[in-house]
Amino acid sequence: MFEKITIIGCGLIGSSILRNINNNKISKSVTVYDKSKDVLDIIKKENLCNNLSKDIKSAVKNSDFIILAIPLSSYKEVLLSAKDDLKNDALITDTGSVKKEVNKIFENLNLKNISWIASHPIAGTEESGPSAGFKDLFKNRWTIICDNKNSNKDKVEKLKKFWEILGSKVKLMSIDDHDHILALTSHLPHAVAYNIVKTAINADEKFRDEIIKYSAGGLRDFTRIASSDPLMWRDIFIDNSEKIIKILDEFSKNIDDFKKAIKEKNGDKLLKIFASTKSVRKEIIKAGQDVESPDFGRKKN
Amino acid sequence: MFEKITIIGCGLIGSSILRNINNNKISKSVTVYDKSKDVLDIIKKENLCNNLSKDIKSAVKNSDFIILAIPLSSYKEVLLSAKDDLKNDALITDTGSVKKEVNKIFENLNLKNISWIASHPIAGTEESGPSAGFKDLFKNRWTIICDNKNSNKDKVEKLKKFWEILGSKVKLMSIDDHDHILALTSHLPHAVAYNIVKTAINADEKFRDEIIKYSAGGLRDFTRIASSDPLMWRDIFIDNSEKIIKILDEFSKNIDDFKKAIKEKNGDKLLKIFASTKSVRKEIIKAGQDVESPDFGRKKN
Repeated sequence: MFEKITIIGCGLIGSSILRNINNNKISKSVTVYDKSKDVLDIIKKENLCNNLSKDIKSAVKNSDFIILAIPLSSYKEVLLSAKDDLKNDALITDTGSVKKEVNKIFENLNLKNISWIASHPIAGTEESGPSAGFKDLFKNRWTIICDNKNSNKDKVEKLKKFWEILGSKVKLMSIDDHDHILALTSHLPHAVAYNIVKTAINADEKFRDEIIKYSAGGLRDFTRIASSDPLMWRDIFIDNSEKIIKILDEFSKNIDDFKKAIKEKNGDKLLKIFASTKSVRKEIIKAGQDVESPDFGRKKN
Repeated sequence: MFEKITIIGCGLIGSSILRNINNNKISKSVTVYDKSKDVLDIIKKENLCNNLSKDIKSAVKNSDFIILAIPLSSYKEVLLSAKDDLKNDALITDTGSVKKEVNKIFENLNLKNISWIASHPIAGTEESGPSAGFKDLFKNRWTIICDNKNSNKDKVEKLKKFWEILGSKVKLMSIDDHDHILALTSHLPHAVAYNIVKTAINADEKFRDEIIKYSAGGLRDFTRIASSDPLMWRDIFIDNSEKIIKILDEFSKNIDDFKKAIKEKNGDKLLKIFASTKSVRKEIIKAGQDVESPDFGRKKN
C-alpha cells in the first residue's frame, strides 16, 4: 500500500499505529521519528521498529505517507524542519484533536505537490507514552478525516482505507464541524473534569483526606479523565479556545438553571433533565460506543 | 447480633444488604418491606428472603434493627406509618446520601426510646433495583456513621460492627461534615455530569447523531454517571441544595478562570491546574478508592 511510512511521534497513538502497520504489512518500510531518546529506547526494546531516527530530515526522506502523532504545539517546528525533504506527491496526515490552527500552519507553509489531509482517530485512554499503546486501540472506534473540495480524492480514499485496515470506522467532515463536535464530546468533558477536581480539592484543605477517601461516590471517575496527558490537553484547549469558550458559556447557563431548580425544589424540572441524559446513554450504548460495563478502551490485561 | 432486622426498600442498596445478612447470619430473622410488588417478586424469585411485606406496620413490629434504604423523599411517609409500631429500644439507620433534612424529620417525630443513627455506605453503581444488588458492594468501601453527643454509644458501636461485617470500613462524623464532603465528592460530580450531557445534546440538534457517535472522547464516561437513578438524585439535590449551590458557585468561578486562561493562551496556568488534578488521582489510587483500571464497583460477570 505504501513504500515508506514515517510516524512522527511515537506515544500512545503513534505506537498503536506502529503496532498495526507491523501487523498488517501495509508498507515496505516504516521509520519512527521521536525527539525523545526514552521513547526510541522503548520502541527498540519492544522490537517494534528497526528504523528509528532522531533526525527529522532523514526520517521523512522518500516517505510517501507521513503521520504526525505529536502535540499540536509541535507541528510548526517539525514541519519547518522537514519541509525541504518531503517526497513529491507525499501524503501527510495527523492524529490531533483540533484542526483549525494546524491547518493554518499547513496553509502558510504552502507545500507544493504534497497532500495534507487531517485525520483524528477518536480513541485513546488517559494513559500516555509508547508502552500504553496497543494494537486494538482503533478497533470499532471512529476516525474523522477532514477533507475539502481541494483534497486529492485518491489520497482521501487511500487514507480512509488505511484507517479501516487499523479497524476503525471512517467519517469525512469539514474542519469546522470536526472542531465543533469534538468541543462538545471531548473538550467540554475534559475542561469540566479538570475544574471539578480542582473545585473539590481547593474548596476545603481541611477535608482533603476525606475527599480522597470518599471519592468513590463520583469524584474518582472524573479524576481519571482529569489525569490525561497535560501537554496534549493544554494544546487542545488553546487551539480550540474559541469554540470551547462558547460551549462553556452554554454549560454555565445550564448550571445556573440547575441551581435555580434545586433552590426552588423544582423536582419535575430535575427529573426532566435526568430523563433526557439517561436516554443519551442508551443511544451511546446502542451506537456501540460504550458497553454496559465500560472498559474505557483499555488494554486487556 | 439481632433478633429481627427489617429492611425498608429493597433496591440496589437494600438488596445488597440483604444478601450480606443472609450470608453472615447476623439476625434470627429478616423482613423486607417494599411498596413495589415488582421488587418483592424479584426478591422472592431470587429466594433472598421469606418474610416479605407490603404492610409497614407488621414489617417493623418486634424489629430491633430497621434499615431505611428508600429515596429521601419517602422517609417521612414511611416513618409516620411505622412510628406507633416500633419496638422499644430499636435501632433505626438509613443509607441516604444527605442527612440534614431527614434528621429534621426524626427530630420532629421525637420518637421515644428509639435510637436513630444515620449511616451512609459510599458504594453504588449507576444501576438500580434489586437485581443490580450484590454481596460485595460494600467491600473495602467506606460507610459514614453520623453520631453526635446524644447518640447511644452502644448502639453506635453495634451499627459500626454491622457495617464492618458487610466488609465496609467505618468513619464517624457529624451530619454537617457528611453533607459537606458528599456535596464535594458526589453531588458536585453528578450535578455537573447531568449538565454536561445536557449541554452536549442541546447545543446542536443538527449534530445529535455525531455527538453520540464520537462520544468515546470523554462524553460517554459522563453519561454513565448521568444515568444514575433519577428519583434518588432529585431528592439528593433538593435536600442538599444549600451546600451544592455554594460549591457550584465556586466551580463556576473556576470555569471562568479556566476560560480566561485559554482565551489568553496561558499554557503555564493550564499545566498548573492539570498537575494538581493528576496528583489527586494518584492519591485516590493510593488510598485504595480506585484501581488503575477501574471497574466502578460493578458486579463481576
